[in-house]
Amino acid sequence: MSSHHIVREDQEPALIIANGAECSKELMGQLLEWSPLVIVLDSAIERVLELGIKVDVLLGDFDRGLDPEHYREKQYPLEIVYTPDQDKTDLEKAFDYLISRGIPAVNVIWATGKRADHTITNITNIVRYRNTIKVVMLDDHSKIFLLPPKFEKWYPAGTPVSLVPVGSVKGIKTQNLKYPLNDEELHIGYRTGSSNEVLHDGMVIIEYREGDLLMMECFD
Amino acid sequence: MSSHHIVREDQEPALIIANGAECSKELMGQLLEWSPLVIVLDSAIERVLELGIKVDVLLGDFDRGLDPEHYREKQYPLEIVYTPDQDKTDLEKAFDYLISRGIPAVNVIWATGKRADHTITNITNIVRYRNTIKVVMLDDHSKIFLLPPKFEKWYPAGTPVSLVPVGSVKGIKTQNLKYPLNDEELHIGYRTGSSNEVLHDGMVIIEYREGDLLMMECFD
Repeated sequence: MSSHHIVREDQEPALIIANGAECSKELMGQLLEWSPLVIVLDSAIERVLELGIKVDVLLGDFDRGLDPEHYREKQYPLEIVYTPDQDKTDLEKAFDYLISRGIPAVNVIWATGKRADHTITNITNIVRYRNTIKVVMLDDHSKIFLLPPKFEKWYPAGTPVSLVPVGSVKGIKTQNLKYPLNDEELHIGYRTGSSNEVLHDGMVIIEYREGDLLMMECFD
Repeated sequence: MSSHHIVREDQEPALIIANGAECSKELMGQLLEWSPLVIVLDSAIERVLELGIKVDVLLGDFDRGLDPEHYREKQYPLEIVYTPDQDKTDLEKAFDYLISRGIPAVNVIWATGKRADHTITNITNIVRYRNTIKVVMLDDHSKIFLLPPKFEKWYPAGTPVSLVPVGSVKGIKTQNLKYPLNDEELHIGYRTGSSNEVLHDGMVIIEYREGDLLMMECFD
């Protein structure tokens, strides 16, 4: 797998390859094709290089004994970003790095699967970046993103959609979903909007007033 | 793989096999060996029977066209529990079934992986069962359970432990963790206690006052 990583005015989303379960080569290939900048988190570099992917940035605290310099010559030019801060995950540090470069959007793969603590933290922490970078997290069964206060998108009838509140979310109204919400609340652990679906071919509208609501487009 | 499923006073935990990613045969074998009752959720039965496991209960709404009667003779005696309620997940219905039978504890496998909406819903919804059944969710990298208001357990130094709040959790105090909490709060999405670790060989004590705090013992 090869690609062409020239930063083109930072318009296409960057791609972060995190350290969870690998996705299909097809999904990765689609995302690489358009991504001007590829960031790999810490020891995931070992698995990524086996796939023959050109990496632009290697980021991590390298506290598991990985020597980043070893990879510099293999991937020249490779920027190495050392991030020792123990209060943030490597994924959050990668978001911070992109924000510092003025990059407005990023796709994230390999952020789910394997350890459940990493999976749930990676998914739910994207709410912190609501106002700073547009994050889409993808795996072979899921596309996950934070909904803006009003969201509108065309979907075919029957598309499975799940609304997952990160904490409590108030004032949720939906249009064109099989199980509609009309100024209602969702609470993680107690009332979620998982396993809903699109009613008719057409626009789905989701609005909410308070809190952080994730959209998950998932399929078996 | 075979097993021996005689209900022995319902003292050992039941085992629910959900419909996410498969775990290792080793983990499944360990859990089957002690489990007096094996419940399989809906279409997971197809994958489970390929493994040669004796199933006691098949539970689901069977809305994807699976014919449960087809499996009855293959697994005689097999109890089929039809649960059409669309307001609950199959996993919740299986918990309700066990509670109705007076079974006090259950291990759950195959509840993570694949669809992210199912994974996050399955993990976080166990908080609803705080007072009714003891749930432990396991996969190849994770052991997940709801912490009681005061939790004490012996761990070796360096054991990774993650504290994941389902919503907001207040008044958390820990002893013998590398990153201690002293009457502090955690909020999902904003401040979690992921990737902590045990400081010294010995008892770890975790207390909290309000909310639902999950323990995740995870490993790479």
